[in-house]
Amino acid sequence: MGVYLQDIPVEEAFRVLQQKLSEENLWGVLGIETIPLDENALGRVLAEPIWAAISSPHYHSAAMDGFAVRSNSTEGATLTKPLELTVDDEAVYVDTGDPLPEWADAVIPIEQVEALTKDGAISQDIRHPNTIRIRSAIVPWQNIRPMGEDIVATQLVLPSGHTLRAVDLGAIAASGWSSIKVTRKPKVAIIPTGDELVPIGSSVKAGDIIEYNSLVLAAQIRSYGGEPQRYPIVKDEFSQIQKAVKEAAKGHDLILLNAGSSAGSEDYSAAVIQSLGEVFVHGIAVRPGHPVIMGMVRVDEKAGNKIPIIGVPGYPVSAALTNEIFIKPILERWLGMQPSEPPQLEAIMTKKITSPAGDDDYIRVVVGKVGERVCAAPLSRGAGVITSLTQADGLVIVPRGVQGIEAGEKVKVNLLKPIGQIEKTILAIGSHDVSLDVLAQYVAKRNGRLVSANVGSLGGLLALKRGEAHLAGSHLLQPETGIYNIPYIEQYLPGIEVWLVGFALRTQGLIVLPGNPENINSLEDLVRPDVTFINRQSGAGTRVLLDYELKKRGIDAHSIKGYERQEFTHLAVAAAVASKRASCGLGIAAAAQALGLDFIPLFQEEYDLVIPAVYYESPLLKPLLETLEDREFRHQVGQLPGYDFSPMGKILARIKP
Amino acid sequence: MGVYLQDIPVEEAFRVLQQKLSEENLWGVLGIETIPLDENALGRVLAEPIWAAISSPHYHSAAMDGFAVRSNSTEGATLTKPLELTVDDEAVYVDTGDPLPEWADAVIPIEQVEALTKDGAISQDIRHPNTIRIRSAIVPWQNIRPMGEDIVATQLVLPSGHTLRAVDLGAIAASGWSSIKVTRKPKVAIIPTGDELVPIGSSVKAGDIIEYNSLVLAAQIRSYGGEPQRYPIVKDEFSQIQKAVKEAAKGHDLILLNAGSSAGSEDYSAAVIQSLGEVFVHGIAVRPGHPVIMGMVRVDEKAGNKIPIIGVPGYPVSAALTNEIFIKPILERWLGMQPSEPPQLEAIMTKKITSPAGDDDYIRVVVGKVGERVCAAPLSRGAGVITSLTQADGLVIVPRGVQGIEAGEKVKVNLLKPIGQIEKTILAIGSHDVSLDVLAQYVAKRNGRLVSANVGSLGGLLALKRGEAHLAGSHLLQPETGIYNIPYIEQYLPGIEVWLVGFALRTQGLIVLPGNPENINSLEDLVRPDVTFINRQSGAGTRVLLDYELKKRGIDAHSIKGYERQEFTHLAVAAAVASKRASCGLGIAAAAQALGLDFIPLFQEEYDLVIPAVYYESPLLKPLLETLEDREFRHQVGQLPGYDFSPMGKILARIKP
Repeated sequence: MGVYLQDIPVEEAFRVLQQKLSEENLWGVLGIETIPLDENALGRVLAEPIWAAISSPHYHSAAMDGFAVRSNSTEGATLTKPLELTVDDEAVYVDTGDPLPEWADAVIPIEQVEALTKDGAISQDIRHPNTIRIRSAIVPWQNIRPMGEDIVATQLVLPSGHTLRAVDLGAIAASGWSSIKVTRKPKVAIIPTGDELVPIGSSVKAGDIIEYNSLVLAAQIRSYGGEPQRYPIVKDEFSQIQKAVKEAAKGHDLILLNAGSSAGSEDYSAAVIQSLGEVFVHGIAVRPGHPVIMGMVRVDEKAGNKIPIIGVPGYPVSAALTNEIFIKPILERWLGMQPSEPPQLEAIMTKKITSPAGDDDYIRVVVGKVGERVCAAPLSRGAGVITSLTQADGLVIVPRGVQGIEAGEKVKVNLLKPIGQIEKTILAIGSHDVSLDVLAQYVAKRNGRLVSANVGSLGGLLALKRGEAHLAGSHLLQPETGIYNIPYIEQYLPGIEVWLVGFALRTQGLIVLPGNPENINSLEDLVRPDVTFINRQSGAGTRVLLDYELKKRGIDAHSIKGYERQEFTHLAVAAAVASKRASCGLGIAAAAQALGLDFIPLFQEEYDLVIPAVYYESPLLKPLLETLEDREFRHQVGQLPGYDFSPMGKILARIKP
Repeated sequence: MGVYLQDIPVEEAFRVLQQKLSEENLWGVLGIETIPLDENALGRVLAEPIWAAISSPHYHSAAMDGFAVRSNSTEGATLTKPLELTVDDEAVYVDTGDPLPEWADAVIPIEQVEALTKDGAISQDIRHPNTIRIRSAIVPWQNIRPMGEDIVATQLVLPSGHTLRAVDLGAIAASGWSSIKVTRKPKVAIIPTGDELVPIGSSVKAGDIIEYNSLVLAAQIRSYGGEPQRYPIVKDEFSQIQKAVKEAAKGHDLILLNAGSSAGSEDYSAAVIQSLGEVFVHGIAVRPGHPVIMGMVRVDEKAGNKIPIIGVPGYPVSAALTNEIFIKPILERWLGMQPSEPPQLEAIMTKKITSPAGDDDYIRVVVGKVGERVCAAPLSRGAGVITSLTQADGLVIVPRGVQGIEAGEKVKVNLLKPIGQIEKTILAIGSHDVSLDVLAQYVAKRNGRLVSANVGSLGGLLALKRGEAHLAGSHLLQPETGIYNIPYIEQYLPGIEVWLVGFALRTQGLIVLPGNPENINSLEDLVRPDVTFINRQSGAGTRVLLDYELKKRGIDAHSIKGYERQEFTHLAVAAAVASKRASCGLGIAAAAQALGLDFIPLFQEEYDLVIPAVYYESPLLKPLLETLEDREFRHQVGQLPGYDFSPMGKILARIKP
């Protein structure tokens, strides 16, 4: 193979791709088709400009119901000295839209006319009286829509490359067309490969991966204006993948082969593409995404022509971004559209980011305006974390050659949400809790917007200190005193007036097997020789709480079997219990519930909201503070297992500098 | 009838509508349906939140190809003091995505491992060697995707009311779902009524109106998320309209009846609705649009339930805005969406606007950033001018109680185009010419954007003076000297350095009947007794030119029959000739061509671009100035009849203050 996972810069990959497509005459509009002018034309792209075939109106037209007159015959009419005009000779009734008689140059609205009979009485036949009496003069062209007022025949109505919106269809119809030439939709085959893949809806066992990349890729292709076709899952076998690609090459303009694009022992994509054409890029300096393959495959053995094929990496974020970065521009070109540019916003990065120097690095962020500063808080960096894309308000691209971004540094954010959303965003940075997700839903009902970035309690206080968040969720226990949050606020937020608002008492307890077969009911049971514990890492809130409670009870931590074994999340603790690697662990009820385990409640920890006074009193936070009082919301979060929301909304402390 | 064209404020109309819909239990989600999770779910709205059924990953998973190990068994390994681990007991090969053995807590990437045989030689079987040699230690959880890294079972994945994008479908699949509950699409019947209406594609005669409102309304409904059904045109007869409405009421959630919503003699909408239910609003204080009807009609005679019906006014801009203002919010409510809010931008109005004090007035504007000021230039106000909507970058709403906006006043613009488009916009305000439309197309190819507002040549100079445009098209002839533009620039733009850039010589000539049957070939022929002239209004450039040329030739204007008869556009002059109301008129070739008339070229006028030096030299104008040199563009505009583009791009004068 000529090319083998040597990452090249994005621009270079594009340059090669464009050159290869140009060689095959594929760097331009794919084709043109004529379609009827109906609502299915919405979203299609004009292949040719629309020049008006007729004018609109195509005649001088009455703009009101009334009498068409010569304006000069109305001169001199006043309230006290009315004029009378003879119907047929000097005045003719017209409805709105009717053509004007050739001799007329104005319309007197019906409301301003007295219709008279031959005898000068009020006529019942408003449309055909004998004469009309008028009490004011009218200027030329009043209440007329002159021919061509909207569109003049031969004028440009819409340019080629324009994506049709509803009103455009009206303008095209008005200019005399009943069908239009639009660019053909590119047909894109999406082939998922992998032994570990199972279809959406399968019941899964360890090692199974639900195949949803093809769904995301297909939906993206559709939203770009293409016609996707998803293939069934193909096993990791050279011959089967080759067969699928050969078949797809016949009826499509582009193939997306997902995944097997890396260089592992079961990664056949490059070899398959090479066998049916050529690989010209293998590896692009972009993260997430780098094992991207670009190649061309022959449409069939006899025909000389080729179509492009992209080896899309397997991690879901990599796959979605590869589509957005490399494939969307191809489709835009094929559809004859202008390259799209995301709206950009300048923001302050709230957290230091390190980035591989050799790659363009796509950081998913949430964005909010804190005081006068627009702040971008990074979400999970993992290429497997699709929720980092669903939650993202935007993308920050750390370009090649830059090794990272300092906290507080200015960055450009490519927005994925409308700017109006950003402006009403309440940015919560700190310890995340599932109840904040429910809160966010109810804040949305009050036309607010709450987004959260999870950096832990202390990280939240530091974000408040730097002025990069409106509030922080916090559950910091001072082990010496058993007091939550206040000592830390005093230590870390000197000089800032802060209100500590109650949110929830969160139950921590022991996660045990269903039915609690080992009968573990208290911290004291942990030292039993038949009990094996699984711990959280030091520094975790749950670990601090455990150590505090053990000390209070005088239990020696080191007499607990498994105290040294650490997991990093509540769920991992639950998973260790579920797989019987441990008898129990300390955690929250939701983690036990997630894996169908039992939960022995032991004690409650305070989960509070730390809010600078300036934001507590701002209109921005109103939807959130109102929600805390909302009975429906309180009922809904009350359904979450393991919470006590009685402190919700109470001001626990006002900490003045 | 209880309600009869008494305009009520928009908010009041909404309040009544909401109340009536609430009474029928129609002010909420219409219905819920379960659909499979595939690409057709794109754009649908979640009827219920998505809570994760499973975690993702649902097991601790290898993040790289390599060997799963216990991290503590790697402690002490260095480059010079490697460690060996026994395969199966201490190290097990895993591919990316494979589940981690229960005892393992890290993965060493395959590239960092030496695979050895029993004898300590390099093993060929990379997956099943006897031992592996490693030269660095690994920390716990490295190269692992822990269970729940992306999604934790029971967590909120997406809230209800969320409109599904491509990546959302992936997150839903990852959280264990294969079908989703979404809100039902509202079914909307659209009934066009009117004797004067003819279907799209008909050949038209005077008085015919092409019926395209139903197309625009249907396309809008579709883009709001509804399912439109267009009915055939119904004649202006009470019984026929009633029949169509009765039929539509059966299978739909909403009926749009267009038009007949006014109070004219042939406006049956209100009476029909009254006969089948009730009219509760007739006339809303909004422009364009005011004769809007809101009512409810019974689904059938027996059933008690009713559905809403909106009488939509007939002018195309009124119809489209009625849909946007009144009907879109109903559909959003029915679909369970948050009310949409257009992105807003603050701008300076470039022209004085007077507005009816009693109405909310929707002004269509184009928007550009001139220096540091965002400027909004109003487009045509006519309710019949659909191109004012296709060209609009945004809407400025002049609220009730405000009688207008001064030039230079600050306004909020509801944007219809992305903000990135606005920022690259070259705003041309002045005299419009069709060749500017072609120019705009080529500027777009260079990733620029040119928009024009037509205020005439002098209006353009005044816009430049106020700093509200980047350039102005101008053809101002000084009759005393025969010099174009320069004297006016000196008079109106003192203190501004301006470059006068050549664009076109535009041929003005006589528009005559095909074949020129009256043999009219010069201005001298105008005084012939058998020739009737049609003139332009005083102040029009063409009129100035005519008077200048007559004077030069010593022809007495008043010896020309028809000199006093005025039309206001080139096309109206051509129409007067076509209908034989005049033998000839002076105008441009395009107007003659538009109506299939002949054109006798007489003289050329200068159409120049007036560009302040500061913009001439700015990057913003680069795409435009480059286009003036573009051979393909020059060829394309060269096809327009009646132009000479030889001055294009030449700097005719640099006028310094």
